[in-house]
Amino acid sequence: MAEPPKGVAVLGSTGSIGRQTLDVIRTLPGQFRVVALAGGSNHTLLEDQSREFKPAFVWCQAQERHMDIKAAAGARTRWATMEEMATHPDVDVVVVGTAGAAGLGPTLAALRAGKAVALANKEVLVMAGHIVTAAAEQGGGELRPVDSEHSAIWQCLWGEDVAAVEKLILTASGGAFRDLPQRDLARVTPREALRHPTWDMGRKITIDSATLMNKGFEAIEARWLFNVPMSRIEVVMHRESIVHSLVEFTDGSVKAQLGEPDMRLPIQCALSYPERMASTAVPRLNLARVQALHFDEPDFGRYPCLRLALEAGAKGGTWPAVLAAADEVAVEQFAQGVIGFTDVGKVVDAALSAHTGVADPTLEQVLEADAWAREFALAHGSPARAAVRPR
Amino acid sequence: MAEPPKGVAVLGSTGSIGRQTLDVIRTLPGQFRVVALAGGSNHTLLEDQSREFKPAFVWCQAQERHMDIKAAAGARTRWATMEEMATHPDVDVVVVGTAGAAGLGPTLAALRAGKAVALANKEVLVMAGHIVTAAAEQGGGELRPVDSEHSAIWQCLWGEDVAAVEKLILTASGGAFRDLPQRDLARVTPREALRHPTWDMGRKITIDSATLMNKGFEAIEARWLFNVPMSRIEVVMHRESIVHSLVEFTDGSVKAQLGEPDMRLPIQCALSYPERMASTAVPRLNLARVQALHFDEPDFGRYPCLRLALEAGAKGGTWPAVLAAADEVAVEQFAQGVIGFTDVGKVVDAALSAHTGVADPTLEQVLEADAWAREFALAHGSPARAAVRPR
Repeated sequence: MAEPPKGVAVLGSTGSIGRQTLDVIRTLPGQFRVVALAGGSNHTLLEDQSREFKPAFVWCQAQERHMDIKAAAGARTRWATMEEMATHPDVDVVVVGTAGAAGLGPTLAALRAGKAVALANKEVLVMAGHIVTAAAEQGGGELRPVDSEHSAIWQCLWGEDVAAVEKLILTASGGAFRDLPQRDLARVTPREALRHPTWDMGRKITIDSATLMNKGFEAIEARWLFNVPMSRIEVVMHRESIVHSLVEFTDGSVKAQLGEPDMRLPIQCALSYPERMASTAVPRLNLARVQALHFDEPDFGRYPCLRLALEAGAKGGTWPAVLAAADEVAVEQFAQGVIGFTDVGKVVDAALSAHTGVADPTLEQVLEADAWAREFALAHGSPARAAVRPR
Repeated sequence: MAEPPKGVAVLGSTGSIGRQTLDVIRTLPGQFRVVALAGGSNHTLLEDQSREFKPAFVWCQAQERHMDIKAAAGARTRWATMEEMATHPDVDVVVVGTAGAAGLGPTLAALRAGKAVALANKEVLVMAGHIVTAAAEQGGGELRPVDSEHSAIWQCLWGEDVAAVEKLILTASGGAFRDLPQRDLARVTPREALRHPTWDMGRKITIDSATLMNKGFEAIEARWLFNVPMSRIEVVMHRESIVHSLVEFTDGSVKAQLGEPDMRLPIQCALSYPERMASTAVPRLNLARVQALHFDEPDFGRYPCLRLALEAGAKGGTWPAVLAAADEVAVEQFAQGVIGFTDVGKVVDAALSAHTGVADPTLEQVLEADAWAREFALAHGSPARAAVRPR
């Protein structure tokens, strides 16, 4: 490799995506240089990461830990905000692995600075897809997906013209309760909801997988990542999570990307693009050992959240922000035992029904809609316990 | 479409590939112009095709039918050889749908003239892959596959670097006897062998599908089409024939192309490349309706022809020509009831074992090996009936 290593900023380095990003970088020595690390509340891990990768810039939430982390990283390491990291000249790829609205600012800054953004944060595109894609267009930045479904679609589109896309087909495992009779769904517990059959993920996303809201978010993300209208985005149930997603073209051809479920592959693709880099870190797919792949229509009666998400995505404007915010509150209330599993969809539905949407909102209007929906969901989801705050 | 229609020469226009090529061209009005038609023995069909498409050039085997066909095509239509058609300035794409060695001359001529060759003829690459690819390199011509498996691999490689290929994975339906106990294979009849579960094809290829020799030929073709060594080419059993083939990359990602079994899609891809053209002619895949896709290891004990083909392909030189020629004779002898189904592999095995190969053969040496293998197979397959000639 004659090329210099690519500079990487890892925002959310102590989270699941951040840790796996650093795993990928470890397996590809000489290809990447960790320029910046921004961690969350796990300061010990951020210290360890700083010691290992000696980034030029670090950041963490707790001011009082700055000195320890800088000491671990070395004398030349400086403190920087996530926006500064995301726009620094030494950074080629910004990995946005932070959850929630915290990812929005750095993502916009990086795209406006013409960087490649490896985006694992769902909220950013769901809430503000039109603003994010406009920033990319304005600054020449590039969005690269970091999750299995969108990476699959992205890989299927390499060398293809997006004008020839007939459909994007997202696969859905069906989540924790896919084999439970529908009548039993109202009584499932948060603990049961957190057992995902295939993927090991965070709490919020595991519950969103059980309601298929997560798949609805992914459909909205796909709409923005690939500039395809919601009417051309479909979901198919696929319990093995081996076919990560598919693209149907206007000539009838269908392409799919497959693999053992492992987040390191989409992360590596987003880092190495437009190359593929040889690696044995990702477990190899053996279809003969898998034996069978199953597919089925999604049942919108069983999964009302999926229908709500597809509808909100088609409406656009502030509706997806309301969808996401109401869902976040409702999921938290379910996780705390305040409402039942099937109440999540009801709360979101009520919020969307009560919302007076704005068609082409500014970021301020998106954040207003977000705040309104959180309040609405909190009041609607548990009138008796309005003091329960979303995390 | 501001671009002028692409000029197409259809060699073997009255055969299965030729007829389906004209079907595709009919469904895409204004995109293609049929410049030349070369037919086989079905003169009535060639007359009809000439009347419909008014090609500038026609050819057929029977001299005595020339005047009828020219009369049908119109006053300006001229007689031309397949080599002349394949190299004419008005021709952009040459569809080689002729079977056997007849396809070799026009293919080489077209590639040396820098044309795109849509190749459906297996023998050309199996026998003389090194000569064909050298002709393409020399003349700037381009090989485009026209069968489902290779088209699948080709489509999966668009936008990819062939250096990043870990494996090409060809899918095999298993043919007519895939569910028959192995001990019963020796007694199957030619009539039973001609019932292919998924594809409607010619006699030779249907029997080759039942022995998996056809898959072995495809592996050798893939080696030349994509410049990937035989050691990186695998076969996986897949009875539904929905996943047409797959590519595994060095980062562990796997891409597949899927669709309902229909030859018109690979034909259209080969004609329209590098574009995809919107068409509703090809039936749409609905995975939820398909429900399940199955995969299994190939059983080399059951399918000795597959093992022989992979070995002959790995040896290279004149071995694949011997493989193909011995198989052609043996299959014909089986079809005529002279030898049993499981004797096909034994005859081919004996021919390969008896052959003294040449490593980097000239075309003459390939044709010598072919002739030797035919004689050997005829004598070996039926000593008592040496007068039986291959068709």
